[in-house]
Amino acid sequence: MKLAIDAMGGDYAPKEIVLGINRAAKAFPDIEFILYGNETKIREYLEASGRITIVHTDEVIAGTDEPVRSVRRKKNSSMVRMAQAVKDGEADACISAGNTGALMASGLFVVGRIEGIERPALSPVLPTMDGKGFVMLDLGANADAKPEHLLQFAIMGSLYAEKVRGIASPRVGLLNIGTEEKKGNELTKKTFQLLKNADLNFIGNVEARDLLERPADVVVTDGFTGNMVLKTIEGTAGSLFSMIKKVFLSNIKTKIAAAMIKSELTGLKNMLDYSEYGGSGLMGLNAPVIKAHGSSNANAIYNAVRQAREMVQSDVTGKIKAAIQSLKIN
Amino acid sequence: MKLAIDAMGGDYAPKEIVLGINRAAKAFPDIEFILYGNETKIREYLEASGRITIVHTDEVIAGTDEPVRSVRRKKNSSMVRMAQAVKDGEADACISAGNTGALMASGLFVVGRIEGIERPALSPVLPTMDGKGFVMLDLGANADAKPEHLLQFAIMGSLYAEKVRGIASPRVGLLNIGTEEKKGNELTKKTFQLLKNADLNFIGNVEARDLLERPADVVVTDGFTGNMVLKTIEGTAGSLFSMIKKVFLSNIKTKIAAAMIKSELTGLKNMLDYSEYGGSGLMGLNAPVIKAHGSSNANAIYNAVRQAREMVQSDVTGKIKAAIQSLKIN
Repeated sequence: MKLAIDAMGGDYAPKEIVLGINRAAKAFPDIEFILYGNETKIREYLEASGRITIVHTDEVIAGTDEPVRSVRRKKNSSMVRMAQAVKDGEADACISAGNTGALMASGLFVVGRIEGIERPALSPVLPTMDGKGFVMLDLGANADAKPEHLLQFAIMGSLYAEKVRGIASPRVGLLNIGTEEKKGNELTKKTFQLLKNADLNFIGNVEARDLLERPADVVVTDGFTGNMVLKTIEGTAGSLFSMIKKVFLSNIKTKIAAAMIKSELTGLKNMLDYSEYGGSGLMGLNAPVIKAHGSSNANAIYNAVRQAREMVQSDVTGKIKAAIQSLKIN
Repeated sequence: MKLAIDAMGGDYAPKEIVLGINRAAKAFPDIEFILYGNETKIREYLEASGRITIVHTDEVIAGTDEPVRSVRRKKNSSMVRMAQAVKDGEADACISAGNTGALMASGLFVVGRIEGIERPALSPVLPTMDGKGFVMLDLGANADAKPEHLLQFAIMGSLYAEKVRGIASPRVGLLNIGTEEKKGNELTKKTFQLLKNADLNFIGNVEARDLLERPADVVVTDGFTGNMVLKTIEGTAGSLFSMIKKVFLSNIKTKIAAAMIKSELTGLKNMLDYSEYGGSGLMGLNAPVIKAHGSSNANAIYNAVRQAREMVQSDVTGKIKAAIQSLKIN
């Protein structure tokens, strides 16, 4: 299989991207890589391999660029060239740690949507306390959504959990402000009825307070709420960890205590480490497009490659196509 | 001033409610209290005071009762009688730690809305790392909202922050998934324009990840999102604290470290303690109605009384009425 990689996207590009690809090339002898970006800079970190090709590009889409416009104008950027390779059948999937909005635009306008899918969804695996994680979508590809979109998200998420994560009959939950069927806003109340009648293992509403405890294998929500909840989790955890750090540094006694417990606390932080989980799949496109975290290190990129490989091998895209087709027939 | 108290609402009623009132009666000699509930049980904990009256009631609205129906049927419950006292002018404000939905229904159907206010809002002061907190509304009185409702929330929250919390020219922020003006869903984009043109110190969008750092003095959102974010903060903090506890108990070394740092960590937990902040005002009603936390202890009730007293003294209700009136004229 062939993967197209945006070597210039992300806070630590191209170094960490290339280091991650070096590691992935050794681990997965069935993959050929095409790296898009500044050839000289890429070669600085690249270990020689007959399975890695570099396509030199000059343009770069920056994190601050306006997404749609930059994708339309910077046709020779590493990101757009990467997406074009997928579109042209030169690669089976692609990975970028660059500008999220621009990657979504590249996905929509270059790779293209699966016929019948109205909205693609940003679908990361969120970390949980038990280290297993769950698929949540949409985390922000579209701010507004209709019940029918959420049904499509549920179908895509369920297929991903089953085919890529190996979970038989994945439990699908609807993120809501109460567990009872009649709770929520117009969107969740209508979506509840659609999910109840769909061919899914729908377990009902799940609450935001339980997310770190893995209340379901797939959690469905609109992009506004999903993005809000994700940022709230990150912000709360960040604020608490920084306060705990302050507490530990407050005097000699607490500093000694901190030294005694350091490795255990690091373990806790690692449990919530995104880089073990790969990237966020942009679900609903004609091929797997993976958004790696902006601050991706080599490990995160390696895991994103592993994830892309599993998505291609299990043909998630083909299975989503078939499921949406049969939904239209019914 | 006279306060009506639901002595039977909340997980630790009537004991903690009565203990809180005992303390408040000593601290605030200008308040007379009317306690609604089981007289025998109340007397078990009540300290004699000429300023506390008991009105015996038999019915109780349980936490599991269906809100609107229970308020309509249980006319002799401690909660409905308490609200009726406010409606009849026998009390200036009321406090309950009981069923949130039923208290909102009591507020709407018994106490009544301020003319011109379309939706009341649940408006707690959320704890922050610096111990100062901020007003956030709506936290769940209504699941769906229109831009005009959010504008009214902003006006009410700003008046509350200024008149009760003593903040000059309170900074009003709109909770959104990005700080730029064009970010968000239909609701937040339209609301942004309304707030920008209103007579408020509007500072723009604020993000959920910054909430514990007090990004504004008043944060405005719809009830669905607000409730979701609140539960996410609670859930994330709860999961992290329980994991930290597990880490501390994992072996002898960590247990010693835990003992060394215990008082400092307790301080951190207390910083996020709701009971110091009083209750959630139900903003937009004809008189202050305060929802104390379901697990309120005496300290929380004492602080809810202090809050109700400040709301009555500063005539927040009258000021909201005037502001809404002038909004209609303009």
